[in-house]
Amino acid sequence: MLITPGKLLGEINSPDDLKKLDQAQLVQLCEELRHFIIDNVSVYGGHFGASLGVVELTVALHYVFKTPYDQLVWDVGHQAYGHKILTGRRDTFYTNRVYNGLSGFPKRKESEYDAFGVGHSSTSVSAALGMAVASKYLKEDEKQHIAVIGDGALTGGMAFEGLNHAGVSDSNVLIILNDNCMSIDPNVGALKDYLTDITTSKTYNKLKDEVWNLLGKLSNFGKSAQEIVSKVETGIKSTLLSQSNLFESLNLRYFGPVDGHDVNHLVTILNDLKHIKGPKILHCVTVKGKGYGPAEKGNATTWHAPGTFDKITGEIFKKIYEKPQAPKYQDVFGHTLVELARTNDKIVGITPAMPSGSSMNIMMKEMPDRAFDVGIAEQHAVTFSAGLATQGLVPFCNIYSSFMQRAYDQVVHDVCIQNLPVNFCLDRAGFAGADGPTHHGAYDIAYFRCLPNMIIAAPMNEAELRNLMYTAQLPRAEQAFTIRYPRGQGVMPEWKTSMEEIAIGTGRKLRAGNELAILTLGHIGNYAVEVCERLARHNILIGHYDMRFAKPLDEKMLLEIFSQYKKILTVEDSCLQGGFGSAILEFMADNNLRAEVRRLGIPDRIVEHGEQHELHHECSFDVEGIERAVVEMLELVPR
Amino acid sequence: MLITPGKLLGEINSPDDLKKLDQAQLVQLCEELRHFIIDNVSVYGGHFGASLGVVELTVALHYVFKTPYDQLVWDVGHQAYGHKILTGRRDTFYTNRVYNGLSGFPKRKESEYDAFGVGHSSTSVSAALGMAVASKYLKEDEKQHIAVIGDGALTGGMAFEGLNHAGVSDSNVLIILNDNCMSIDPNVGALKDYLTDITTSKTYNKLKDEVWNLLGKLSNFGKSAQEIVSKVETGIKSTLLSQSNLFESLNLRYFGPVDGHDVNHLVTILNDLKHIKGPKILHCVTVKGKGYGPAEKGNATTWHAPGTFDKITGEIFKKIYEKPQAPKYQDVFGHTLVELARTNDKIVGITPAMPSGSSMNIMMKEMPDRAFDVGIAEQHAVTFSAGLATQGLVPFCNIYSSFMQRAYDQVVHDVCIQNLPVNFCLDRAGFAGADGPTHHGAYDIAYFRCLPNMIIAAPMNEAELRNLMYTAQLPRAEQAFTIRYPRGQGVMPEWKTSMEEIAIGTGRKLRAGNELAILTLGHIGNYAVEVCERLARHNILIGHYDMRFAKPLDEKMLLEIFSQYKKILTVEDSCLQGGFGSAILEFMADNNLRAEVRRLGIPDRIVEHGEQHELHHECSFDVEGIERAVVEMLELVPR
Repeated sequence: MLITPGKLLGEINSPDDLKKLDQAQLVQLCEELRHFIIDNVSVYGGHFGASLGVVELTVALHYVFKTPYDQLVWDVGHQAYGHKILTGRRDTFYTNRVYNGLSGFPKRKESEYDAFGVGHSSTSVSAALGMAVASKYLKEDEKQHIAVIGDGALTGGMAFEGLNHAGVSDSNVLIILNDNCMSIDPNVGALKDYLTDITTSKTYNKLKDEVWNLLGKLSNFGKSAQEIVSKVETGIKSTLLSQSNLFESLNLRYFGPVDGHDVNHLVTILNDLKHIKGPKILHCVTVKGKGYGPAEKGNATTWHAPGTFDKITGEIFKKIYEKPQAPKYQDVFGHTLVELARTNDKIVGITPAMPSGSSMNIMMKEMPDRAFDVGIAEQHAVTFSAGLATQGLVPFCNIYSSFMQRAYDQVVHDVCIQNLPVNFCLDRAGFAGADGPTHHGAYDIAYFRCLPNMIIAAPMNEAELRNLMYTAQLPRAEQAFTIRYPRGQGVMPEWKTSMEEIAIGTGRKLRAGNELAILTLGHIGNYAVEVCERLARHNILIGHYDMRFAKPLDEKMLLEIFSQYKKILTVEDSCLQGGFGSAILEFMADNNLRAEVRRLGIPDRIVEHGEQHELHHECSFDVEGIERAVVEMLELVPR
Repeated sequence: MLITPGKLLGEINSPDDLKKLDQAQLVQLCEELRHFIIDNVSVYGGHFGASLGVVELTVALHYVFKTPYDQLVWDVGHQAYGHKILTGRRDTFYTNRVYNGLSGFPKRKESEYDAFGVGHSSTSVSAALGMAVASKYLKEDEKQHIAVIGDGALTGGMAFEGLNHAGVSDSNVLIILNDNCMSIDPNVGALKDYLTDITTSKTYNKLKDEVWNLLGKLSNFGKSAQEIVSKVETGIKSTLLSQSNLFESLNLRYFGPVDGHDVNHLVTILNDLKHIKGPKILHCVTVKGKGYGPAEKGNATTWHAPGTFDKITGEIFKKIYEKPQAPKYQDVFGHTLVELARTNDKIVGITPAMPSGSSMNIMMKEMPDRAFDVGIAEQHAVTFSAGLATQGLVPFCNIYSSFMQRAYDQVVHDVCIQNLPVNFCLDRAGFAGADGPTHHGAYDIAYFRCLPNMIIAAPMNEAELRNLMYTAQLPRAEQAFTIRYPRGQGVMPEWKTSMEEIAIGTGRKLRAGNELAILTLGHIGNYAVEVCERLARHNILIGHYDMRFAKPLDEKMLLEIFSQYKKILTVEDSCLQGGFGSAILEFMADNNLRAEVRRLGIPDRIVEHGEQHELHHECSFDVEGIERAVVEMLELVPR
């Protein structure tokens, strides 16, 4: 079902068409664009609140700037739906986030209007500055470079690194601060309070006017008063103007705050800013979900990516199941952490801005003094956890697998080298699904397995996750303990199992076989269960071992396996280079063992977005792919 | 030779001894501590300027605070020599940075006074905040937590992440900004200018006083003037006090700037700050190299870690060689980059605060508009480079291998996923030497090899480095190109070879053999050359292949090798888990090849500091270790 755009929007196939409109028509266009987004997301799902919040900004930017010659970088990119719709992707927008369809984020391969691919936060300033510095060097003096960054993304340290460099460059870069007081969850930290401060009436700008007015009145008290007033004014001016603002401290000219929903004012101010050289920041105040009542009034976190919903009533559709469903691993994590924390008062929880996504919000609600949302700040989250661990606390630091990439040095330097007992829970390990390559947790096993003092485990089901978490919180003097699990449902509707310790580095023998054994790690092992069952019906008996730990390996079990089987198939939802399968190969080489080994996992290329099962299928490690590999290895059919 | 400490210092075996001194004796103690550091470093080498700059601060901190109960975290740790000397390590200090001796950095295993291990920059705020939050939860209300961070380290994004969290915590954390305008090289960026601004006389603090005085005079103009003045005052106060300072913007109480060399004033102010609850920052202005004329007056970068020197004349000792020496890889990089940039005007250089260490300063000097020091900001450096690459420029982004860990996500997300042709030069790959585990470049092959669109090469000598750099700058539409090389000298005194293209993913056959082949990657291959020569003298012919690329592998050459040899020894100065040797094992498994493979490299444990050759020996991949492995594999002696 193609959503019909409004009259104006229906004519806009590129920003050139947009520029043909009278400025007076922009309000109408914004209205249509907003409705088009609401219509699409209500039917097809996707990210919602962020894009509604920047409708006016998006229209104004493409109206004023010469995209794609001028370069526009959207930070994170959740908010770029309007941008996609205005830049030639209106009629394909219904394929957004669908396998083989449009990406949910700006992506260079998708459009020349997507100047820089995004997904993770806080990259836009650095990217736009790189482009701006290049343009300067290439003598493209008229070219404009714009980064649109949210107040949440601004808490990520690399944004600050970019600002610190931008402030001393003479590059023509415009940073637009899209201030809606939110990340996915409410934004946290001192910066948020500061932005709120300078946006409220008691602030900087208003004060500046008031002080000037009052000093004006004082001047009426005669000449010597005038002289003093003049001195005061000069002094205050230099302070207020040059130093009273965080951004001006960093030598960025600061403009605003302005109403981010007044498209005409935005057009005026952007036209002005075009002609102001050097690095500058425009502070826009916007409302996430703007223009859609249920989103504006409701819970902004819910409306970040609500799924499909009834656009009239605002009722979010929920699937209704006849049978009890297995819970999400996320929820098992959240509830189990609280359960453990009730009896172990040393446990603390840490999330970098993902309280709802990781379900850390359950602990934050029940034990607010023991669970911390530290903002979009993975680096800080890890070293902060290391600091907590030095004092004998038991931190569970929950970070999405792909976001952990951002705290890699902190894991190496502050946790592993110091051999501190920090627990990491890597959510969204394996394919993230519709969010695509920026969010796939593809590399974690490879990048953690090379680190000393690191335990890496992956649960095959809910009970295993609970047992691993139970094990991780038992007193332990050293070693980091990583538990990786995928986004989404497990397999156990009755998941509230009693917990027990798992000996570190031990696997589970699930099924004995004859010639070939499948070694799996984590949830993906459930596919292998099905394969073994299907083949067993044909009297083909395959061994299946849930190895459970990528590090340390269960060496005893492996020696047994290699003494028994001559063909080994490893399966993981992680990269094949340096992953779990490679660990098995290393073990073989180190023990001079021989066998035919085939490894299934994520291949050495960028895998795009789609449903998890679609991507597993594409990479041949779903049930069909595993079965095909087994059949080939056993030469049941010619290769 | 043990350096004799001064009279007071000779009695101080712990901070408890220090506390027995009268405050009036502290100036004398500072003098003695300074001389002890000068005496030691002039004879034994090590880091210099930073520790001299914080002598007074170090004495004051241990005099005022109850270390180790109160917890003191030194950022980076180059400046902690005084701290080590005062905390029981005076008499072993001569072993500083020596194999099996003291670490050059604070280290938890070494002393209970080292609250947190450091080496990389910008971690201290997060670590101290973690400790402070833990103390609060554990009801240790009197415990103090202090982070000492330099203005250079403050440009690292994670410091900002920590400040953003600290500002909303009610933790009792004191951040001491040690502002000396330097990293190893001069500090850069907008923040530096800002700190200079608030330190000069025209600033905030002075202005505050002036404005108050002037307003006081205005009040004399009668009652209605008084009322207006009062309003102005309130308004200005709230602005000036709460917002006019970068740190106060982040809700940290700001004190200073103070003279960091006035030990008595420091004692007073630290005593005051002890009783002020909540997060706060003390801005200390110090001079790197303070108290040693040649360092104060000379080049601060040179005196960061000068090697040994004549303490009277300030002459830095240089080794004199009879024969021409091979250059450092660093210098080959620096000169070759300029050589290439002269003919390819698309080349630009990027370094995060390591212009002298990486030799990027050569290009910065000759082509200041094309080479960028972006500050201690590896994340920004990588994404900035990606931005430059989108515009068709050819960035050479030079980052130490261990510091690249901090930009890992940016390499994944902004370079590899977008498939941009960015060139990375990983300096200090393999063992860093005296800097120890925080600086060893042990994991780069493993953490990069798992990434799609990534080429990884390592030169065995200077000519190879030049050829790889030449190849990397040739027009290429996609793929990142990483060249890793070690700290220190190569092997070619006549290094200015003409350059030629190397086909990507091709190795070099150096020597044919009978039964066994050694496959090496990078400079470490020179050890294998020697082994082969030694064994050839006994008519034992060993094959030797310089594989040159860890990714992509030279598959053609490997198929040849495996058809010819049944025993393979891989050698790399990189971790064994997921490294180059594992790549060979993966290739074997994928091609169903069989051979006995033994892998030499960095083992799965933290290797401490020492000379590079000492560490190679310890890990058994020096000449002796390689030869032993060969002899064992060939069963020339019983295993």
